[in-house]
Amino acid sequence: MSELFEFGKNILESQPFSVLLGTELEVFEPGLANLSLKVRDQLKQQHGFVHGGVISYLADNALTYAGGSVLGDSVTSEFKINYLRPAIGKKLLATASVLSAGKNQAVCQCNVIAIGDDGECTVAVAQGTITRVAK
Amino acid sequence: MSELFEFGKNILESQPFSVLLGTELEVFEPGLANLSLKVRDQLKQQHGFVHGGVISYLADNALTYAGGSVLGDSVTSEFKINYLRPAIGKKLLATASVLSAGKNQAVCQCNVIAIGDDGECTVAVAQGTITRVAK
Amino acid sequence: MSELFEFGKNILESQPFSVLLGTELEVFEPGLANLSLKVRDQLKQQHGFVHGGVISYLADNALTYAGGSVLGDSVTSEFKINYLRPAIGKKLLATASVLSAGKNQAVCQCNVIAIGDDGECTVAVAQGTITRVAK
Amino acid sequence: MSELFEFGKNILESQPFSVLLGTELEVFEPGLANLSLKVRDQLKQQHGFVHGGVISYLADNALTYAGGSVLGDSVTSEFKINYLRPAIGKKLLATASVLSAGKNQAVCQCNVIAIGDDGECTVAVAQGTITRVAK
Repeated sequence: MSELFEFGKNILESQPFSVLLGTELEVFEPGLANLSLKVRDQLKQQHGFVHGGVISYLADNALTYAGGSVLGDSVTSEFKINYLRPAIGKKLLATASVLSAGKNQAVCQCNVIAIGDDGECTVAVAQGTITRVAK
Repeated sequence: MSELFEFGKNILESQPFSVLLGTELEVFEPGLANLSLKVRDQLKQQHGFVHGGVISYLADNALTYAGGSVLGDSVTSEFKINYLRPAIGKKLLATASVLSAGKNQAVCQCNVIAIGDDGECTVAVAQGTITRVAK
Repeated sequence: MSELFEFGKNILESQPFSVLLGTELEVFEPGLANLSLKVRDQLKQQHGFVHGGVISYLADNALTYAGGSVLGDSVTSEFKINYLRPAIGKKLLATASVLSAGKNQAVCQCNVIAIGDDGECTVAVAQGTITRVAK
Repeated sequence: MSELFEFGKNILESQPFSVLLGTELEVFEPGLANLSLKVRDQLKQQHGFVHGGVISYLADNALTYAGGSVLGDSVTSEFKINYLRPAIGKKLLATASVLSAGKNQAVCQCNVIAIGDDGECTVAVAQGTITRVAK
């Protein structure tokens, strides 16, 4: 386990909301971050799909991680998400990467993929700006 | 309690994720929706602020409600959010309204306000497209 | 004519693309900027409406001006636009305002209004981040 | 020249604003569209870079073309753009592709690349929703 990955896991464990949802860090390398979430009933909306707010949370957090992998301690300043189809399956995986980074900000993109017994499909795409937290 | 408000409350109670977070419907009229959330530790990130994912969830859901108030059963197709400042306080309030609506889609805007003992401030603004669920 | 307004007019005149399109500065005060454009055939698309790219240009520029009114020399870092209806009429007016500003960035919103003989209507809404140009 | 490409070229020639700017269609296949623009002084802003409004126009139009390649006659409903760096060079190339398409809407992404004597770099990324024009 790399030092960066360990750092990322510690951050995630110190986010009570991520603990509540059960988010796991799968990949955390310079310029890349994958976060996943086991789908359970508590995360759904009234039609039985994963709630859009869960998907936007996961995209937002993966974007922050991707940006943070090159900037250090960071927050999401803004992002935009398009939902492509209803999210069903056993697991959500958000894969985010850095498109461009300066000293204080990075622009990142993220795909959210739903993985089920029958395969996987992209359920949302997001794009946003991550900003380094001034110390 | 209007029929529309009662309908809206029932939808919220049938969203397990909204129940998990404790979201409450405050206003639900044609073209308007206010959702609120009591801030508790479980909803925070590592710096003690409300997690951005909670704010984006609340904005997303308020946008859907606003659109749904004129379209009927609806989902968020896409939205964009700018975080303005860290969210602290006792309660979050998302106020959403319809800017323009056709038969199948509505464009809505939303402010997310953090309310504390010292007053309130806008912590995020969002804008998105809500789409009627085809029956 | 205020000093700020004169400064704004000079910037606009030094943007060849704004001169090509015929953009005019109508209001430029701390936190506010209105830009307008006379609609002519050259600015249209194949259906006879104003081209979306003209509307997004005007929104983008009005957002930059609004941000610049409090930040000084600035650029748009990102924005999002929803087109509400086809733009017809004699004049486009983009009204932008600052929602929140720090030392280096401002979040702004903008409405684009089409004005014709029959009245006016909002044809697009935009939201974005403006960043001060480091000197 | 494929029938689709010829159709696309005709549309572009019937957009007065695209003719004014000098936009050219380079690729137009199901799910893909590349549009380019020769950089000239008229397209610049006050610092000598290509005006952001030109870049957003080109991204918007490429997104519409990409969506239109699978939907037929279409318009952009909304999009979001992040500017990554100042655009300098001899030519702008916007490459757009469809991420997901239904019967009436498609979600597309676009990169805008500036090409100069020294090489090329991505100057903006965009993401948006394209809607089929009802007949």
